[in-house]
Amino acid sequence: MPGAQDDGIHAVRRTVSDLHAELVRYGLVVWTAGNVSARVPGRDLMVIKPSGVSYDDLSPEAMVVCDLEGAVVEGDLRPSSDTAAHAYVYRHMPEVGGVVHTHSAYACAWAARGEPVPCVLTAMADEFGAEIPLGPFAPIGDDSIGRGVVGTLRGHRSPAVIMRNHGVFTIGADARAAVKAAVMCEDAARTVHLARQLGDPVPLRPEDIDRLYHRYQNVYGQRP
Amino acid sequence: MPGAQDDGIHAVRRTVSDLHAELVRYGLVVWTAGNVSARVPGRDLMVIKPSGVSYDDLSPEAMVVCDLEGAVVEGDLRPSSDTAAHAYVYRHMPEVGGVVHTHSAYACAWAARGEPVPCVLTAMADEFGAEIPLGPFAPIGDDSIGRGVVGTLRGHRSPAVIMRNHGVFTIGADARAAVKAAVMCEDAARTVHLARQLGDPVPLRPEDIDRLYHRYQNVYGQRP
Amino acid sequence: MPGAQDDGIHAVRRTVSDLHAELVRYGLVVWTAGNVSARVPGRDLMVIKPSGVSYDDLSPEAMVVCDLEGAVVEGDLRPSSDTAAHAYVYRHMPEVGGVVHTHSAYACAWAARGEPVPCVLTAMADEFGAEIPLGPFAPIGDDSIGRGVVGTLRGHRSPAVIMRNHGVFTIGADARAAVKAAVMCEDAARTVHLARQLGDPVPLRPEDIDRLYHRYQNVYGQRP
Amino acid sequence: MPGAQDDGIHAVRRTVSDLHAELVRYGLVVWTAGNVSARVPGRDLMVIKPSGVSYDDLSPEAMVVCDLEGAVVEGDLRPSSDTAAHAYVYRHMPEVGGVVHTHSAYACAWAARGEPVPCVLTAMADEFGAEIPLGPFAPIGDDSIGRGVVGTLRGHRSPAVIMRNHGVFTIGADARAAVKAAVMCEDAARTVHLARQLGDPVPLRPEDIDRLYHRYQNVYGQRP
Repeated sequence: MPGAQDDGIHAVRRTVSDLHAELVRYGLVVWTAGNVSARVPGRDLMVIKPSGVSYDDLSPEAMVVCDLEGAVVEGDLRPSSDTAAHAYVYRHMPEVGGVVHTHSAYACAWAARGEPVPCVLTAMADEFGAEIPLGPFAPIGDDSIGRGVVGTLRGHRSPAVIMRNHGVFTIGADARAAVKAAVMCEDAARTVHLARQLGDPVPLRPEDIDRLYHRYQNVYGQRP
Repeated sequence: MPGAQDDGIHAVRRTVSDLHAELVRYGLVVWTAGNVSARVPGRDLMVIKPSGVSYDDLSPEAMVVCDLEGAVVEGDLRPSSDTAAHAYVYRHMPEVGGVVHTHSAYACAWAARGEPVPCVLTAMADEFGAEIPLGPFAPIGDDSIGRGVVGTLRGHRSPAVIMRNHGVFTIGADARAAVKAAVMCEDAARTVHLARQLGDPVPLRPEDIDRLYHRYQNVYGQRP
Repeated sequence: MPGAQDDGIHAVRRTVSDLHAELVRYGLVVWTAGNVSARVPGRDLMVIKPSGVSYDDLSPEAMVVCDLEGAVVEGDLRPSSDTAAHAYVYRHMPEVGGVVHTHSAYACAWAARGEPVPCVLTAMADEFGAEIPLGPFAPIGDDSIGRGVVGTLRGHRSPAVIMRNHGVFTIGADARAAVKAAVMCEDAARTVHLARQLGDPVPLRPEDIDRLYHRYQNVYGQRP
Repeated sequence: MPGAQDDGIHAVRRTVSDLHAELVRYGLVVWTAGNVSARVPGRDLMVIKPSGVSYDDLSPEAMVVCDLEGAVVEGDLRPSSDTAAHAYVYRHMPEVGGVVHTHSAYACAWAARGEPVPCVLTAMADEFGAEIPLGPFAPIGDDSIGRGVVGTLRGHRSPAVIMRNHGVFTIGADARAAVKAAVMCEDAARTVHLARQLGDPVPLRPEDIDRLYHRYQNVYGQRP
């Protein structure tokens, strides 16, 4: 059924294209410096932003379809320069359906100092279930970033990692969940930054973090 | 007169739905993390945001009608995960017609450190008549948050409480007044944060706070 | 010529109503907490915002015309609670055609600490020609604020004064110039705040401030 | 071919007019305090913003065409008060096709302290290839600013210079590249400011900066 498959890819193209507007709305990106990708369900393919294209100029057609080694399968434009990192995550974390990368400012401030964001707010316990961890410094372009992301997030509750001196990568069951994690990551990075400017945040107890995390993951929101 | 009653509920649904746009406009919420409710005048009912639904997708019809124990009376969606807290406030503070909850960033920075916001600006004296007090840490889902909110705000001039490690709850004679309190709370939390970053604010004298508060509550604005 | 006079007042009503949108655009106000007024040219009248009315609901017709003692001459709504302060300025500074009051956040942080904003940027020298001075703490409602504003700004180059524990008042040859001063005041208060967070700004030499000020006042912009 | 030449100038007028909207969108300017210019390809002319005109009122027709000494060649309005600085850059850096000047707040905070922005983020290495350097204090109106800009940026990788106590000048192969540099400059100034508020950023190694810079300049984006 190639037609049905193409329809599936087109829907993913639209989703990925549209979700970039959320990065803009929440101020996570400037100019062209951030990207969203999604796995094509049931196929060894991903859809990702083209490199260096303005968020104003995105459309489903402009998105690039790559295989999970990062090679272009479909599309007139070159894919994001972070394609190798996204592809590595999809190859090594089959449960991941979406990946987001940003240089959002408060998270990058933690990245520049090389510090994780401690879990001192109920909203952080809800979404991250723990601190937002720090990943290694890694050069751009080969598998190094992907290895750092997977090595940090595998087995961790947090869907977000702050890569040292670089920025944020988030994962999710789908691309929308990864975008949500990127939004909540910057919000947490900002709020804890503000808290620490004037003193020391009161830690949350591990058992409170556990309880909040499990409740949020199982009770919050609408159920199908 | 069931028809008239239904009209009354519909008007409250619209008000509650629309007021969420103010939370977005003033940057008090990200993604789906904040909610407004209103008491239905003359009935033991409240109208509240559905859980985990995007602010873009709200409508009067999407709002959820609950009784004052938090049980759903009308609506296809599950109510906010903060419903128990809102309901507790309506049960124990009959003068309250609206409740708002946010995780606005500057207020949450005070929450993370466990500090009230001192009253050092005339605009704070006007709206809050005192410091913005700190409420206890409390788990989400049962009556604990509601008890903490009521225990802190009953007998206090401030319509806002900052719950430790969590966020803001505000109350008002109606939902619009509670939204206003949430907006002014974040503005005060931000301004005093900025002031304290570079030194110590000059305290306002208690008699000046009293005079400003009484004037604002009685003279400001339009009179019916 | 009452008709021509009424046309003149209507034009001022429109200008004052429209200029409030600039306060919103530049983030100088939240909810209803700031106001613009203008002198009616050639008459002992001023046009000012009504008290406690949302910026969304302003229109030329909603503006209030007062005499220079602050008494309402024309309009269905009550005038701003800061009317006495505006009126005092118009009575005592005949060169002033517009007055603006805000609680913009960075300026209020300086107000809470009771500090003037030092002139350490060429943009400040251009617009203010000096530090932005600090005015006294004064109760709201009588002539005290007006006296503090006039006492601080008369003979000073700066069109803006930061009133201790309160907020900003600015003046201008017309209302638009006063709004510009309010915008530039917050921008200066913010930038110097940021500079001081990480060290000590390098002072500008008085002779450089003088040269910048005179050039900007005489050469910048379009000439009639 | 005067017609073709005029078409060329009109296209540059439109580009320069439109690009000011990016300064507004990214919050780099308030009121009228920032400007973009572009060299007219193949001619000793530049197109620049008129002085003191609101960004709302810009249009291709309102732009001013000057020769590279800064004298007006075409246009009803007076050119930007920074025209001499722009012109100096075009005369002395033939590879430059666009110049931007802003007073963006975080960059101006570094300017007020007289400090360059250290290169501690991969995004800075990509765009600037080095720290963002500090230029001298210079009076406005004559060649001093232009000399300071050219003296600092000639032979430097960075397309942005922070002029002491003043603001930012950026250059690019065309006006759009200069605008991008202004956007990235403020983003870097802000992020490193935030990082330093809570500790010391981890330096990037010079060889990592080199590798990132060369990759970004040669691999990022779409190729013609």
